[in-house]
Amino acid sequence: MQRRKVLGLAGAGAAGAAVAGAGAIALTHREPKPDTLVSDTAGAYPFYGERQAGIITPAQDRLHFCAFDVITDDKAALVDMLQDWTAAAARMTQGRDAGTFGAVGGSMQAPPDDTGEALDLPASGLTLTIGFGPTLFRDVRGKDRFGIAAKRPAALADLPNFPRDTLDPAISGGDIAVQACAHDPQVAVHAIRNLARIGMGKVSVRWSQLGFGRTSSTSRSQVTPRNLFGFKDGTRNLKAEDTALLDEHLWVHSGDGPDWMTGGSYLVTRKVRMLIETWDRSMLAEQQTIIGRDKGEGAPLTGKLEHDEPDFKAEDGEGQPVIAVDSHLRLAHADQNNGARLLRRGYNYVDGSDGLGRLNAGLFFIGYQRDPRKQFVQIQNSLAKLDALNEYIRHTSSGLFACPPGLLAADDYWGRSLFA
Amino acid sequence: MQRRKVLGLAGAGAAGAAVAGAGAIALTHREPKPDTLVSDTAGAYPFYGERQAGIITPAQDRLHFCAFDVITDDKAALVDMLQDWTAAAARMTQGRDAGTFGAVGGSMQAPPDDTGEALDLPASGLTLTIGFGPTLFRDVRGKDRFGIAAKRPAALADLPNFPRDTLDPAISGGDIAVQACAHDPQVAVHAIRNLARIGMGKVSVRWSQLGFGRTSSTSRSQVTPRNLFGFKDGTRNLKAEDTALLDEHLWVHSGDGPDWMTGGSYLVTRKVRMLIETWDRSMLAEQQTIIGRDKGEGAPLTGKLEHDEPDFKAEDGEGQPVIAVDSHLRLAHADQNNGARLLRRGYNYVDGSDGLGRLNAGLFFIGYQRDPRKQFVQIQNSLAKLDALNEYIRHTSSGLFACPPGLLAADDYWGRSLFA
Ligand code: HEM
Ligand code: HEM
Repeated sequence: MQRRKVLGLAGAGAAGAAVAGAGAIALTHREPKPDTLVSDTAGAYPFYGERQAGIITPAQDRLHFCAFDVITDDKAALVDMLQDWTAAAARMTQGRDAGTFGAVGGSMQAPPDDTGEALDLPASGLTLTIGFGPTLFRDVRGKDRFGIAAKRPAALADLPNFPRDTLDPAISGGDIAVQACAHDPQVAVHAIRNLARIGMGKVSVRWSQLGFGRTSSTSRSQVTPRNLFGFKDGTRNLKAEDTALLDEHLWVHSGDGPDWMTGGSYLVTRKVRMLIETWDRSMLAEQQTIIGRDKGEGAPLTGKLEHDEPDFKAEDGEGQPVIAVDSHLRLAHADQNNGARLLRRGYNYVDGSDGLGRLNAGLFFIGYQRDPRKQFVQIQNSLAKLDALNEYIRHTSSGLFACPPGLLAADDYWGRSLFA
Repeated sequence: MQRRKVLGLAGAGAAGAAVAGAGAIALTHREPKPDTLVSDTAGAYPFYGERQAGIITPAQDRLHFCAFDVITDDKAALVDMLQDWTAAAARMTQGRDAGTFGAVGGSMQAPPDDTGEALDLPASGLTLTIGFGPTLFRDVRGKDRFGIAAKRPAALADLPNFPRDTLDPAISGGDIAVQACAHDPQVAVHAIRNLARIGMGKVSVRWSQLGFGRTSSTSRSQVTPRNLFGFKDGTRNLKAEDTALLDEHLWVHSGDGPDWMTGGSYLVTRKVRMLIETWDRSMLAEQQTIIGRDKGEGAPLTGKLEHDEPDFKAEDGEGQPVIAVDSHLRLAHADQNNGARLLRRGYNYVDGSDGLGRLNAGLFFIGYQRDPRKQFVQIQNSLAKLDALNEYIRHTSSGLFACPPGLLAADDYWGRSLFA
């Protein structure tokens, strides 16, 4: 009767267990190991590197995602702020205060240059990933505020309207996005809050989203987590170890578009409300048919084990496909989508209740890819048209951002190659 | 320059460090130690006991608080549900599925009796604490739906309107509250969601709140955490180890009111929005004057160390009190409040942004006490009138609940002594 397994450190969830298995629990500060994919829960990931951290970094357990509107038209002021942001991000990801004086080290007659709520907390695997939205290149009134319209990548084309979309513009879009992931929500919240503080007068928070229990593993060192429909999520995800696949599906190549994006990746976010009360009343058999996998193991309905390949041709006794034609597994699979794949990195969310007696909960979908036009748009079109899951979900927010490659030198800064 | 300390396991925050210090990290399941106050992050607290767990239990790092409206007038149906809730709570707090079949063990042609998202997760220190609100005894139309009006304790008197209150009734009150605390938010969310599922048709979610980074330590084994104003919070809290003080200020005595509450405690919740952008622009000196403590160490302005006693009589060179007359420390202190004290157990929250470019963040205050009339009401009246902090905060939600003592036997259930 005791079905729930005991894997290890709960605070760190499944990732903690993986770390524990590797004997890597750190009780005191350790120097980051730049070439390892597995961070201990207290440790720090390097800020500088060929790629931005937070994409193939093994998904941490907590998210604070924030989309900002740029409220100045002054390019120099914006570039200034991006330099300040970079310095703060480089510090915070290493477990340090946002500013050089810190929360309590500066003048008593000035506001501190760190807000203090992370004072006693370690780096906690914090990563900060920046992306630039379409409206930064040309705002909603069509104005090229910063003279960068010509640098807009074709792949950063506005997403189309999908069937069944019920998007709320107030929590969609944004000029700049920062994804903060960490093992401790207080650390992720602290990072976003300090960037917002530093950006005062230049940017304003458009929308922000907290998440937990990352719904997709991004490394084979991680146990596959579960989404709020109770199913394993991330089984067939692109993984950090699949370097050839990442090269094909995740990273932007030289020649794909403008140089400043070479080595970067495109980010699509979708807030997907789950009608969990309706789902909870549906039969186990129906849930499994909808997903195309079994709930316990996560195996395709044609297999036994989680990582078995699905057999889309298999039929049951009545000549019906075992993996239904409108199942999420079939419709999201590369075979149905011209080979398109994604690196998913979403999180579960609960935003309190909705005033109608229900929890306001769902999936904050995060997908990284080389070209959204061929990947997210392709897959979401298949899903939006036919997916049996649609009865139980509503897309309420959408975001699209171009995430440049990583910074290699300490005098480089976020957006330099775009604005310089 | 590196001010942020590295204490230990980030996922578990400061509590993890305390646990680690005690050499108590568990990588595999361990039997709960009923008489210890420190749980490892994976372990389980006993469900049965003289007191409800979740009050003096060392504050776990994550919260999902839920207030329910009872939507049936049928007492038997409600009692039935409370029995089902108790059975589910006893299971879930021990890391088991909510129902006897579990997420995947039942009939394929029925909805599962567990929603599945905690399938691979350990107990994670989950506690579930129940409380009954004033409207359960007499609803808003004055009706005694369940024939228990005579059992309403005098101490469960509706809270008065306090100066400056800006409460939203939609996220205040409630007939029944359940406080779920755990080291993993997915486990806390799973617990509330399954209680809501079990209660379908009998209760409906009125409001719910997620929180993190508990803002008050409740045990001397814990490092004092920080709230979103960056100050240590919980220094002068009642602690689990202070048994004589708990007896005086926390637990309801026989003779205090109706028998069913003897050994229980009263819970007040207040959602306090923090205007963090305004706070972040104020000087360090001003912040410290407002709180009455220094930001780094958390010492009273008249002392050096966090746990030094404040000296309210001390004056500076100009004859002004060192701890200002309108400081939070002075106004909240027992000496200013007829000796009243509280066991605080609040959490930080961030509910996204507010549509005006600001993070929607603050403190979800949770206070337990023997008699709210003499404790919370007394202290909040002092604060609401004079506290310099008021410029930076807004109270937006309020809740009051009577939390009975713990259950001792497996055939007992939540509310039996109230309804039987
Ligand atoms: C609430 C909404 C959603 C739920 C509950 C959900 C759930 C799942 C589950 C349980 C799986 C199977 C396990 C796995 O391989 O990860 C899966 C696979 C997948 N999902 Fe979703 N998903 C949702 C939305 C989306 C969206 C919006 C997209 C992109 C447009 C998407 C793309 C994919 C892809 C590409 C796969 C892998 C398919 C394969 O290669 O086998 N999902 N999803
Ligand atoms: C956002 C709102 C609030 C903030 C930022 C805040 C912050 C603090 C801080 C930093 C301390 C000093 C450290 C400690 O002893 O814990 C403190 C103490 C205290 N607070 Fe608050 N607090 C808030 C609201 C409240 C409310 C609503 C109450 C109850 C009505 C309350 C009651 C107390 C009490 C009783 C103490 C201990 C005083 C003593 O004995 O020294 N606080 N608070």
